[in-house]
Amino acid sequence: MAGFTHLDENGKAVMVDVTDKDVTERIAVAEGRIVVGEEVFRAIYEGTAPKGDVLACARVAGIMATKKTSDLIPLCHPLMLTKVSVDFVPEEEAYAIRCICTAKLSGKTGVEMEALTGVSVALLTIYDMCKAINKRMEIGEIRLVEKSGGKSGHFIR
Amino acid sequence: MAGFTHLDENGKAVMVDVTDKDVTERIAVAEGRIVVGEEVFRAIYEGTAPKGDVLACARVAGIMATKKTSDLIPLCHPLMLTKVSVDFVPEEEAYAIRCICTAKLSGKTGVEMEALTGVSVALLTIYDMCKAINKRMEIGEIRLVEKSGGKSGHFIR
Amino acid sequence: MAGFTHLDENGKAVMVDVTDKDVTERIAVAEGRIVVGEEVFRAIYEGTAPKGDVLACARVAGIMATKKTSDLIPLCHPLMLTKVSVDFVPEEEAYAIRCICTAKLSGKTGVEMEALTGVSVALLTIYDMCKAINKRMEIGEIRLVEKSGGKSGHFIR
Amino acid sequence: MAGFTHLDENGKAVMVDVTDKDVTERIAVAEGRIVVGEEVFRAIYEGTAPKGDVLACARVAGIMATKKTSDLIPLCHPLMLTKVSVDFVPEEEAYAIRCICTAKLSGKTGVEMEALTGVSVALLTIYDMCKAINKRMEIGEIRLVEKSGGKSGHFIR
Amino acid sequence: MAGFTHLDENGKAVMVDVTDKDVTERIAVAEGRIVVGEEVFRAIYEGTAPKGDVLACARVAGIMATKKTSDLIPLCHPLMLTKVSVDFVPEEEAYAIRCICTAKLSGKTGVEMEALTGVSVALLTIYDMCKAINKRMEIGEIRLVEKSGGKSGHFIR
Amino acid sequence: MAGFTHLDENGKAVMVDVTDKDVTERIAVAEGRIVVGEEVFRAIYEGTAPKGDVLACARVAGIMATKKTSDLIPLCHPLMLTKVSVDFVPEEEAYAIRCICTAKLSGKTGVEMEALTGVSVALLTIYDMCKAINKRMEIGEIRLVEKSGGKSGHFIR
Repeated sequence: MAGFTHLDENGKAVMVDVTDKDVTERIAVAEGRIVVGEEVFRAIYEGTAPKGDVLACARVAGIMATKKTSDLIPLCHPLMLTKVSVDFVPEEEAYAIRCICTAKLSGKTGVEMEALTGVSVALLTIYDMCKAINKRMEIGEIRLVEKSGGKSGHFIR
Repeated sequence: MAGFTHLDENGKAVMVDVTDKDVTERIAVAEGRIVVGEEVFRAIYEGTAPKGDVLACARVAGIMATKKTSDLIPLCHPLMLTKVSVDFVPEEEAYAIRCICTAKLSGKTGVEMEALTGVSVALLTIYDMCKAINKRMEIGEIRLVEKSGGKSGHFIR
Repeated sequence: MAGFTHLDENGKAVMVDVTDKDVTERIAVAEGRIVVGEEVFRAIYEGTAPKGDVLACARVAGIMATKKTSDLIPLCHPLMLTKVSVDFVPEEEAYAIRCICTAKLSGKTGVEMEALTGVSVALLTIYDMCKAINKRMEIGEIRLVEKSGGKSGHFIR
Repeated sequence: MAGFTHLDENGKAVMVDVTDKDVTERIAVAEGRIVVGEEVFRAIYEGTAPKGDVLACARVAGIMATKKTSDLIPLCHPLMLTKVSVDFVPEEEAYAIRCICTAKLSGKTGVEMEALTGVSVALLTIYDMCKAINKRMEIGEIRLVEKSGGKSGHFIR
Repeated sequence: MAGFTHLDENGKAVMVDVTDKDVTERIAVAEGRIVVGEEVFRAIYEGTAPKGDVLACARVAGIMATKKTSDLIPLCHPLMLTKVSVDFVPEEEAYAIRCICTAKLSGKTGVEMEALTGVSVALLTIYDMCKAINKRMEIGEIRLVEKSGGKSGHFIR
Repeated sequence: MAGFTHLDENGKAVMVDVTDKDVTERIAVAEGRIVVGEEVFRAIYEGTAPKGDVLACARVAGIMATKKTSDLIPLCHPLMLTKVSVDFVPEEEAYAIRCICTAKLSGKTGVEMEALTGVSVALLTIYDMCKAINKRMEIGEIRLVEKSGGKSGHFIR
């Protein structure tokens, strides 16, 4: 179907053929954020208690999730990421935490799904660790920020 | 640490002890949405071509993801879901698709992380299948809608 | 949809609700076979060389696969098998190997998919280990042999 | 052991060394079928209700399973599939559904196990979704149809 | 075979039948240690730089690994852990780090394999994160410390 | 942080960038051992009953575990092993079994973590299969024996 690379001419799901695509260096950056509310925000960023484990745990979860992307998203190609980082930026005015995930590959397909999956799981992990304090947290603004490599050129949001 | 059930008294990550909690029927409903833009929206909902596979594929991915929750979120307990459903609602005015995931369990811990994970992965799958048409899609409004069972009572957002 | 327990009233895939089903002892036995041809058959069953590892490896693969069933079959419930065995029976006249897998559970859903998955993966493993000798092997007769427990009663093929 | 590439000289299982093999384009096509009986066959292919989800769900399961092959089959090398498709063909006279899976790779090892695994899991998924109607379905005729790439040349069954 | 609960009467691997065992509260504590050498030890425990992530990352890896035990150890039953903790104790005189993992379950089988797997993977993670500094680290003393619940009674090493 | 390749300049965990590293043939050999005690040792090595399945099962588990390394160790890169073998050597004087795992890759990163993970899981599997006989077994001496390929040169312990 025109436009849908993941559907064949009959509209059936297919893992698209990338056999003949070039191996190039590909980078994708994705972001997202969770609005956690004042109580959670202060507990994470201003508490006197050792606080590192919420974000450290979420970072590890995000990095590990990028490696499971092809296991989660049905039509994603398995691929061998060459670099992943997950960072968090506090947004105090909104009592929110922004997450940025960068994924890199020397390969045949783009890695935006890996970056987006890393962001999603890192934010879900923050939710999980803080949900006893606040059930009304909300995850949003998950989107591609930048993408390079491959024939579609350099994309910056 | 007070408030953080997933951190011990030294702020270290721990999978919290639920051994003595009651086995009760627990239900969680989560939602989220992806703003796909007019072109993708019309291709999915108004196309003449067989279109079912985008949403069918995302539904399957969402259901399967709920079963991987404890593999993705570090401190989630493994558990045996007794029911999962994933539904999609078109929001034409915003060219968006809302996803609702319901998870059910007869067990010792709540299932909101399963429902939230199902929503996240279903929406990521839609993103994946449509990204060749639009790189500016955005996922958001991922949140808990309802939760029942367990000692924290019935929560409705 | 009438008949299809795994589709909702609109024909959409759903993991069916078993929350209220009784916990009973459930057993399923499945079988299947691979026709390997004379050369492979003799190499496995009559060789002088240590031959055990083909079947030992296939047995382990089959047992491990039963534990991955809910990860492979989209609408299968995750469950906690309480017993699994995988056995092989030579069928010399056909140069075939029959595989029988028994799965047991004290739980709310039947375990026939686990037994069938164990058989399938055990046979695929034999195929893999012998394919350098014969590319024309064929796997077949994969079916449920017996099932007990649950409200549908005792089934014997 | 002569013939068994997956056993070493003592008959022990080993993941065979492919380090020095050439990276070539490799394709494998496998097939199999499930005899579902008249009632299931008509429900899937002739029903008035939305029926797509049985085959859509099985197709997704089959594609996802190809990516888990090295996790299921002990001695399979992990590899990065570049294309996968799963198709179904009704065989009305036998009330059966034939499944064909094509897998493609630019790599060092053949992909017949991936194609065979995709077929097996797609057929098991059909079984799962229809088993409430018919417990006597049978899966068979799982075999390699075609294989190209690599030093063993072009194989057509 | 007498003694080997995981082998049947013919010496074949089997996942032993626990269907009829009682559901009791079961706890296992395992330990192990890695000798890291002075340079790594000081970098982790005495550095001025933020050092938490080595142990935080290893703790998360250990906890997550306990949940994968039945996926790693062929004949382990899948089970639903109700509590897991992983702790580290510096042993300065030996420039070593001791890891203690506690696992808890309300179920039918012991959880010592889960505790031992958590220890092993936590220590491997420390190895991975420090191997650029020292290739001669050594992991050892992995053993069961305590086990309670089940018919074999209370074991303390 | 100086020395820690897996921590960024702020001490945060990161999957280190190997995009620009050369693809070379890389080999790693790791070892470890389990002291099983006389009763278990004799049952495995001197019994009259078919005994192969303990070591055959452990070998398969070790090989399969090498393929899961990047899923277990948070900052390990996913990679495509081209060869894996797992061997066992009896050490009668100590009633111990030594395990040696060799992993090979044509790629951008070393494979010592894969070899160490293979050893660890093979030994844990022996523990699991023999724990009904002896709860005091101990796993140790897990270490890198040899490593070649990559810019750090040839390492022999």
